[in-house]
Amino acid sequence: MKTYPQLPSQPIGKLLLIGAGLIGGSLTLALKKANAVQHVTGVGRRASVMREALQLGLIDDFVAPNTPEYAQAVANADIIVLAMPVGQTKSVLRDLLPHLAPHTIITDAGSTKQSVYEDALAVLGNKIKQFVLAHPIAGREINGPSAALADLYVGKKIMVCPTEHNSAAQIRTVVGMWQATGGHVYELDLNAHDAIFAAVSHVPHVLAYALMNHVADDALCDDKFAMAGAGFRDFTRIAAASPEMWRDVCLNNRDAIVADLDAYLTHAQALRNQIATSDSEALLNEFTRASEKRLAWGKDK
Amino acid sequence: MKTYPQLPSQPIGKLLLIGAGLIGGSLTLALKKANAVQHVTGVGRRASVMREALQLGLIDDFVAPNTPEYAQAVANADIIVLAMPVGQTKSVLRDLLPHLAPHTIITDAGSTKQSVYEDALAVLGNKIKQFVLAHPIAGREINGPSAALADLYVGKKIMVCPTEHNSAAQIRTVVGMWQATGGHVYELDLNAHDAIFAAVSHVPHVLAYALMNHVADDALCDDKFAMAGAGFRDFTRIAAASPEMWRDVCLNNRDAIVADLDAYLTHAQALRNQIATSDSEALLNEFTRASEKRLAWGKDK
Repeated sequence: MKTYPQLPSQPIGKLLLIGAGLIGGSLTLALKKANAVQHVTGVGRRASVMREALQLGLIDDFVAPNTPEYAQAVANADIIVLAMPVGQTKSVLRDLLPHLAPHTIITDAGSTKQSVYEDALAVLGNKIKQFVLAHPIAGREINGPSAALADLYVGKKIMVCPTEHNSAAQIRTVVGMWQATGGHVYELDLNAHDAIFAAVSHVPHVLAYALMNHVADDALCDDKFAMAGAGFRDFTRIAAASPEMWRDVCLNNRDAIVADLDAYLTHAQALRNQIATSDSEALLNEFTRASEKRLAWGKDK
Repeated sequence: MKTYPQLPSQPIGKLLLIGAGLIGGSLTLALKKANAVQHVTGVGRRASVMREALQLGLIDDFVAPNTPEYAQAVANADIIVLAMPVGQTKSVLRDLLPHLAPHTIITDAGSTKQSVYEDALAVLGNKIKQFVLAHPIAGREINGPSAALADLYVGKKIMVCPTEHNSAAQIRTVVGMWQATGGHVYELDLNAHDAIFAAVSHVPHVLAYALMNHVADDALCDDKFAMAGAGFRDFTRIAAASPEMWRDVCLNNRDAIVADLDAYLTHAQALRNQIATSDSEALLNEFTRASEKRLAWGKDK
């Protein structure tokens, strides 16, 4: 994994934003603050959400999908940012395709990459070269236009996952756009991306959900929740996250998550067997290794 | 599980403290601050540790084990507090037994209860009635006499696990002692105690240790640790805990932990299968249930 060096600022002309919520709105707010974009047009079905985004300054105007104004906005866009739920990728691209100009770059902000790539390839065909995959590692516990923040990405990690089809210029544009938000931009192969985030984000969420339900299903659950302390609190904090979003992540990153969960469960089962056989030495080795890794990773974390 | 009502203060005369570290030292500091004990004698093999405990005011004097002074201190004690590692329970009780007076209460502070009870029964025989099991739910990431704090137990939960052999007066003494520290004292059956803490503390520790080693064993581990964020940080925080202590907990609470881990792994495996088969509805149900439970348990946690 490599970090991209800071590129010279090169403002974007016309940006078309699909989905003016937390992720997309924070991007355009940041770009406007940095004078890194000239004009942002929002696309959305719900006019009330679009008006809110306009009032908040996330967008400069908006169009409804599949109108003549929409066709014009797509054709004129220098960059199109997909910031709606990843499950809508195919239908959004199908709408865009007839109007897409050859110079336009498409990019996204989805938390999984292989499934977005496959969806995009199925719709775009050889125009897949215009699509540069990306994923900003940032979020909040609230959503919608009013959740957007100009500094959401400052100091955050942004993954850009180019494919062999992308040109160096296209990649530079997307990298430069994210650098203008204050984020640190990394290049990552898309399969490695999905494996990495399965391991450090998706699987821990699944494990935390499983722990909550496991405890809740027990006859002693009231006493258990009453006695649960700081360790349980920290371990299960991510189980409060949006069920819909994490259901979608699991569906979209299925193969990487299943592979990682299987490897994890093998590990947990081995520890279980060491406990069952009172294998003191093996347990001490495993716990010591884990504890040293955790302390080395971040004492203050 | 019931809370004990606040008992009228009844100061302890002579307290004998085995192990003057964080847990025992914080207890005696709190009792001294509340004028709830007249005299504390420490017992320890290492004179340097005992001198430190004396200087810090955790104890008023100390004796070395198996000396004439030790025999005298045991015989004169009103209450003997076991605050050394639980693995030493049998040997400590064997030393105490020949000198134990009939009026003396023994109590402990171990994080598992069934194994302490079995060890105590094996050594004490019918004098088991003098042993009132207890477990304060408090700790720090540091240990030793200098880690002791007079307010460690203020507002914390203290479990007292009486058996059929204990008299009401013996239980009252131990409950009153812990109430004097500022803790909230609960009565809990010892088997329920072990099942509850297996579920909300011991198993999450095992799962967090497993996750650290699972990630560390992977070829992409450097990228994974570099990309891991707040969720991973919270989930694995407890994996930094003392390997020796948690090895001992696993050995001492083996049966409850294995039973709870098996139930947990069944739950996790079911989620894994729902992901593998893209069972959107089941995943949404499970995640929603977990998320609602977590939010209901503690929004601010």
